[in-house]
Amino acid sequence: MATITVLGAGMMGSALCVPLVDRGHEVRLVGTPLDTEIIDSLRAHGVHPRLKLELPRQIRAFQEPELEVALAGSEALVLGVSSAGIRWAASRLAGLPSLELPLAMITKGLEWSGQELRVLPDVLRDLFPQSARSRLEPVGVAGPCIAGELARRVDTCVVFTGRDPSAVERFAELASGPYYFVQRSHDVLGVEVCAALKNAYAMGIGFAAGLHERAGGQPGSVAMHNYESAVFAQSVLEMQRLVQVIGGDPASAVGLAGVGDLDVTCNGGRTGRFGKLLGLGLAMPDAVAAMQGATLECLEVLDVLRNALPGLEARGVLAPSELPLLRQLIRVVHDEAPIAMPFAAFVRGSR
Amino acid sequence: MATITVLGAGMMGSALCVPLVDRGHEVRLVGTPLDTEIIDSLRAHGVHPRLKLELPRQIRAFQEPELEVALAGSEALVLGVSSAGIRWAASRLAGLPSLELPLAMITKGLEWSGQELRVLPDVLRDLFPQSARSRLEPVGVAGPCIAGELARRVDTCVVFTGRDPSAVERFAELASGPYYFVQRSHDVLGVEVCAALKNAYAMGIGFAAGLHERAGGQPGSVAMHNYESAVFAQSVLEMQRLVQVIGGDPASAVGLAGVGDLDVTCNGGRTGRFGKLLGLGLAMPDAVAAMQGATLECLEVLDVLRNALPGLEARGVLAPSELPLLRQLIRVVHDEAPIAMPFAAFVRGSR
Repeated sequence: MATITVLGAGMMGSALCVPLVDRGHEVRLVGTPLDTEIIDSLRAHGVHPRLKLELPRQIRAFQEPELEVALAGSEALVLGVSSAGIRWAASRLAGLPSLELPLAMITKGLEWSGQELRVLPDVLRDLFPQSARSRLEPVGVAGPCIAGELARRVDTCVVFTGRDPSAVERFAELASGPYYFVQRSHDVLGVEVCAALKNAYAMGIGFAAGLHERAGGQPGSVAMHNYESAVFAQSVLEMQRLVQVIGGDPASAVGLAGVGDLDVTCNGGRTGRFGKLLGLGLAMPDAVAAMQGATLECLEVLDVLRNALPGLEARGVLAPSELPLLRQLIRVVHDEAPIAMPFAAFVRGSR
Repeated sequence: MATITVLGAGMMGSALCVPLVDRGHEVRLVGTPLDTEIIDSLRAHGVHPRLKLELPRQIRAFQEPELEVALAGSEALVLGVSSAGIRWAASRLAGLPSLELPLAMITKGLEWSGQELRVLPDVLRDLFPQSARSRLEPVGVAGPCIAGELARRVDTCVVFTGRDPSAVERFAELASGPYYFVQRSHDVLGVEVCAALKNAYAMGIGFAAGLHERAGGQPGSVAMHNYESAVFAQSVLEMQRLVQVIGGDPASAVGLAGVGDLDVTCNGGRTGRFGKLLGLGLAMPDAVAAMQGATLECLEVLDVLRNALPGLEARGVLAPSELPLLRQLIRVVHDEAPIAMPFAAFVRGSR
């Protein structure tokens, strides 16, 4: 058994502690400066206030200033911060000997460098000092996983990906258990692009439920599922295409990281609910306000892609007729364009 | 504009009349001997009793003995019968000059010949007299389409497929309209295999909702969506694999015919509800009884595949380790095996 530190006590970082302690590891959960109340609550009565659940008592909770204490003796480090926290985490860890440790991360996102779309494991590596960079190949965690379900030990299949197969294997062996099933993938670009894109597409799939309710309909087996599923299928085709454009393996869009994560985000995620609000006719600022401060990764990723698509076209790797759904989602979010699904482009086969 | 006869007044055949009349065609809907009450109701007050909807008055309804009257002057024929009705339809049409007409069919299913898996357009063609067979290339209709939604003019994207591109194009032009979007595909095997398989897999995806409720859970954003989406992703991978095994294009499993139709069947179809009953713990006969006589295509297709898989293995085109989900679904249905999802096989990459 190993000693593992998880940095970031949000829902997903905290949930991941459950399969780890169930495997018998010593798990140290360290909050960021934003997690002070969560750590207080875990210490006082073991309850995670956002998961609304008592976590196993074996999880040892630490406040951020105690990070060095937690890391002493740790054999592996998991980053559980949000994409906004990735730079903070890199600078917080920069001077520590723990940079020698195998590192996994659950953070998802994309960045546009002005030249290329970059996935977060690569962004993170470049944030570390040159001396650490050569050794550090972060392992990304993706696939269909609602944190509140993992924390309740619902059967969950995920994908661990990284460029160093031995690091991927090491984390997969540490985490795999009777309800946590880990697929290994070497396709960092494909898996991470899907993990980021699924939020944008899940927002679009959510439109249908809102449009239906706005027209006076009730949820049920006859609603706007035809609309919804046409958008779902197009989403997967476009994820495949974008993975291909940036040099990943399009097959990753078809498995757990693409289809699976998109499906779970529609069924259990907040992004689908946000899309529904837009379908109901709320203006962007009102829909954002109605989400009460929840992180909306869909807006972050659409913002990145709005900048990236012209760049990819200029490089000649993407045609302006491609990704009609993604382009429409960008228009809805950034130009407050009406929701008008380009179904005709879908059936023409425009990916 | 054209005159089109639709044979079979079930939900899907009748729903398809709506985009056709909206395009200005003369549409003649002919019931089978099982549809007498439906036709009576349409004639009396225009209401389709199973769609629970008043259909456009322009649709002309005919009882089965009036088939020849309806066919007089028709320029195209659409078969809207169930898979059980396909042999009846072939013999009913066999002696008629209408066998010259372009033919489309919405019927879905697979048959195992003892040597190979056969899709219904091919089965149908072989049921016709030799003289007609050389001319007849039926056009199959697939993709995510809940009949009750199409009849209410919800935006719908479908796939028309056939080996004769001009026949596919002819039907696509007849049917396409402002809310009915038609993709053309030459991949009859891929599209039709997905259309049949999706029912089997949707049943398995439905297990999660039943298992969750059985364990005392409420529907919501934290339920067993992780389980459900892992099964969904595996379903698409296995559809791809089976399409490949029988010589179709695996890409068909990723678009509207595969991913799209699977998604709509989970969200709006009766098959998902049947799977939920099994997840709740009902024995097979009780679950079937609870569906009150609804056609359960999932059981038909699993029955065919139970016979087909050993044959495909004997031919060396499929390994016994492949399709672990499909094999488990067969065990649940035929051996009343407990629902035990082979997640470990999923993450090993067993398609």
